[in-house]
This record gives sequence, C-alpha cells and structure tokens, in this order.
Amino acid sequence: MRPNNPRKLPEHAYTVRRQIRFSHSDPAGIVFFAEFFRMFNDLFEDWLERCLGIDFAHQFQIEERMFPLVHVNADFKEARKMGQKLNLTLLVTKLGKSSIAYDIIGHDERLEILRASFVTCVASKKTMKNILIPDDIRSKIKNYMERCAT
Amino acid sequence: MRPNNPRKLPEHAYTVRRQIRFSHSDPAGIVFFAEFFRMFNDLFEDWLERCLGIDFAHQFQIEERMFPLVHVNADFKEARKMGQKLNLTLLVTKLGKSSIAYDIIGHDERLEILRASFVTCVASKKTMKNILIPDDIRSKIKNYMERCAT
Amino acid sequence: MRPNNPRKLPEHAYTVRRQIRFSHSDPAGIVFFAEFFRMFNDLFEDWLERCLGIDFAHQFQIEERMFPLVHVNADFKEARKMGQKLNLTLLVTKLGKSSIAYDIIGHDERLEILRASFVTCVASKKTMKNILIPDDIRSKIKNYMERCAT
Amino acid sequence: MRPNNPRKLPEHAYTVRRQIRFSHSDPAGIVFFAEFFRMFNDLFEDWLERCLGIDFAHQFQIEERMFPLVHVNADFKEARKMGQKLNLTLLVTKLGKSSIAYDIIGHDERLEILRASFVTCVASKKTMKNILIPDDIRSKIKNYMERCAT
Repeated sequence: MRPNNPRKLPEHAYTVRRQIRFSHSDPAGIVFFAEFFRMFNDLFEDWLERCLGIDFAHQFQIEERMFPLVHVNADFKEARKMGQKLNLTLLVTKLGKSSIAYDIIGHDERLEILRASFVTCVASKKTMKNILIPDDIRSKIKNYMERCAT
Repeated sequence: MRPNNPRKLPEHAYTVRRQIRFSHSDPAGIVFFAEFFRMFNDLFEDWLERCLGIDFAHQFQIEERMFPLVHVNADFKEARKMGQKLNLTLLVTKLGKSSIAYDIIGHDERLEILRASFVTCVASKKTMKNILIPDDIRSKIKNYMERCAT
Repeated sequence: MRPNNPRKLPEHAYTVRRQIRFSHSDPAGIVFFAEFFRMFNDLFEDWLERCLGIDFAHQFQIEERMFPLVHVNADFKEARKMGQKLNLTLLVTKLGKSSIAYDIIGHDERLEILRASFVTCVASKKTMKNILIPDDIRSKIKNYMERCAT
Repeated sequence: MRPNNPRKLPEHAYTVRRQIRFSHSDPAGIVFFAEFFRMFNDLFEDWLERCLGIDFAHQFQIEERMFPLVHVNADFKEARKMGQKLNLTLLVTKLGKSSIAYDIIGHDERLEILRASFVTCVASKKTMKNILIPDDIRSKIKNYMERCAT
C-alpha cells in the first residue's frame, strides 16, 4: 500500500483538476518539470483567489505585496503524459509570522503522482523584505487550515 | 560569514554565467521561480554536452535514453533582478546505479543566491523505466567528480 | 467606432474566457507576448477537443498526426494586465486540403484587444510531411464553419 | 533556388547562433512555436544590448521605457529538431517616430528556416503610451541600418 494514499486527503482541501496539454509536454511526451513549477504557482494563485477570496492582482498592484517562494522540496513519483489528467491538492502545513508552508500533492484516483513542500513569504514589493502576514490574510488561511483539519 | 561561501567551490567545477533576461522576469522584475527550474534543466544539458562531451540530443533521439528528474530540494536565498548576472555551478554529489545526484549553486562574487539538490535518473524512452547508467556516461561523470575533488 | 467590434462575432463561435495570471505577466505587469502564443496554442487544442470533439492527445499519440503552425499574422492592440480578463474567440476562415486557416480574436465587452490569423497544417509525425485532412476531422470543421455562418 | 537565400544577408547584420534545447522542444521533438517567440524577444534584447550598446534593464528600470510588440507576421518554413542549430539575423526595415520595424530571419547554411516581421514601439512604463524614440537610441539604430546597407 502506498504511504501517502490520495484518498486520505482532507475532504475540504482545495483541489483542482488539470489536463496535461501539448504546451506542458516535453519531447518524451510527458510534463516538462519546469512546467510543473508553473502549475504549482498557478495553483497557489487560484487557492488565494478562488478558495480564500484574496485578489492576487490587487495584493500585488494595490497593496504592493508579493509572495516569493523561498523553499521547495519536491518528489516526482509518476510521469504524466499529454492528455492525462491530474488532481492537485493544496494543504497548509504551517503558518509563520511572515511565511506560509504548504504541500501540493498531485494525484489521480489510484496514485500519488507527485508531492512537494513549499515555503512562500509575504514581502513588500518596494523594500523586497518580508513583512508580517496581514491579519485578514492570516485569518483566512487559519480558517482554511481548520476546515481541512475536520 | 555565510556558511556556503561561493569562493569555496571547486576550481574545476562546471560554471556558467547567465544574465537575467526580460523573458525570465516576473511582474516584480525578478526571476520567476519556474524560470529558475528551466535554467537548471538547461544547465544540466550544457554540463552533459559541453563539459562531459555527451550529446544530449543523440542520447534522446538515437540511444532512446532520457533523464527524468525525480527529486529536487531548493532554497532561494536572494532575488535576482532583470539585468543582473548569476553564476551557476553544478557539482555531482552521488552517482548511483541509475541515478545522478547533484547540486546547483547560484552565486555571484559576494553571495550565494540559491542552492538546489537534484536527483535525475537515466531511463529508457520506450519503457519509461530506469536503466543502469551506461559505462561511457558513468566513467565521464566519475572523471568529473575526481576533477572537482582535487 | 472600432471596425472590428467584438459584439459582431458569430453567436456560435467558440469562445473561452481567460484571466491574466502572474505566470503570463512580464516586468511591466502585462502579458508577455510569447505567452499570448502559448494561449493561442492552448485555445486551438481546446477548440479541437471541447468544441469539435477531436481528442488532441489521441491524434498525436495514436494517429501520429500533428498540427504544426506555418503562418501567423498578429496585431496586439491593447495591453492586458495581470488580473484582467480576456475573451478569446476562434473562427475558421479557410479549410484547405491539408491546412486550416483561422483567426483568434481577443476581446472584452468594449474592446478588441488583439487579432491574429493563423495557418496550421495537418502533418504526419513520422514523415514530418503534410497529409490530407482526414474526412472525420474535415466534416467536423465544416460543421463548425456552418454553425458560425448562421 | 529559394528566393530568400540566407547567403544574401548583409555582412554586418546582427546574427546569433542558437542550439535547439530540450526546453524549447515539443512532443514532436521540434521547437514549440511559442518558444520561437521567446527566442525572438531574447534576440531583440541581445541586439539592443550587445550590438547597439543599449542597456535593456536600464531602459526599463531607470528610464522607465518599454518596448511592446504591436505586430508580428511570421512564416515557419522548416522545423528544427532538438540538437540542431539555427542562425537568427535581425534587420531593421523601418524606423518610425515611436516604432521600430524589423525582420528576424532564421537560417542555416542551406535553408531559410523562418522569416518574421515585427513592429515594436517605444512606450512609457508609467503612461503605457507610445513616446518618441529618444535621440541616442534613434542614432544607434540609424547607424546599424547604415552598416547593414553597405
């Protein structure tokens, strides 16, 4: 039995389903790994926006906050071919003073395809320095963590 | 003093110098992290080809071997802006039966900008399964490791 | 009044709505033009698959047919910022023996944002030469052209 | 005989040689066309910087000028496979008040592989409106056009 069986993921976790496109695929016909990192970034953006209700463009353009990645640890366990589908689930693992630690798990009905852990900071666009996570963002993330814990 | 001072890198390690382009850069004017992973892939290809003398396209098209990434662990320590330069050094850390473990260190004269550890396998394009690293490739990588150790 | 008013587009034309993402955007905070070409390719794939019912991956992997772009003529009229939305409509303009000519129009409620004309061929993956468009694909495209003409 | 024989290109035209990488290539093992547009953008940047001596990052970050593409017309005549090489030559065709028209020709020793015509404007990053091409940039481009004409 696989240790990280995708069926064990929390019911309320944010999950999107993606089809592997031509533009994701390399000469072997499978996802080029740099494209996975682009998908991960798009998923983080979608999670903020569609799951938490935080307008990413507003954060960047008006609040002048950005979300730089400082750490990633990823295992690619199964290849995905053009045309295949993939679920991507985002789970927050730790909420720091100015950082968000989260996992992204790629899976289908049977297999865990990939698992990656990230640390993303909240930073000022002007100073490029980390800032405290604003209260409204913090409470939305906490709320998400609680929903996933039940 | 920084623990991973770039001046301590082996003299014979393969290093390329890259200038950050418009096409690498995100709305904050710094490298979009998925672009770093593309650079890492290009560096691995250049290392095989220009440093070890292994023709990457030949490996893929004629020998039907591919080099899928199975693991990466990366720390992004400093941002790089469009127009800035970055040295990227590749060091092999372990040569397995069918896998190559290596680090890529991004640095300039003063700072370590990023450090990433990778495990890449050698696999058959037909079966998508790992294969033993062929002898000629193994001996070229071993030779590189020895040059870096001195 | 703008000559190519988006409200004049055929009712049954295939249209998708896209939000501009961080990963599409350049240091000016607007879509990097190479990303527009990626969106165009994705749209062509979606049109084949979701509008015409032609499985793109099956065409490529099993039928060994590919759809190389041979010509594009594009006018970018308005910039799109991260967070803004964009409708993309695909209209077939001519169906040749082995080529499909089509326009992609980018628009929102008020403006035509871009307009591009393409010629894509159907080719054999093995020979890399053009082939006659297969009958089933031809009839589906003709059917789409008729729906758009009414 | 091919009408646009690459041997007829002006001796002093700016030409770079690129090898097709894994990261450029699609599941057919040839350059994904969106990647060609990225190469074209990189070439324009290199031409400004290495041929004309105009610091692109300085233009953007300090002078707050940008160079948006408004038009492109491209013919892709021959595919390029991973591992193959390609020369890219940039020729200015017209220098307007606030726009630069130029061709990029992709070629090797025997063949014209692609030919694309572009119109790029000079614009203010703040207002997003076109501006007159500054005199120092104008004179450098004129000088280049004269060198190519001889």
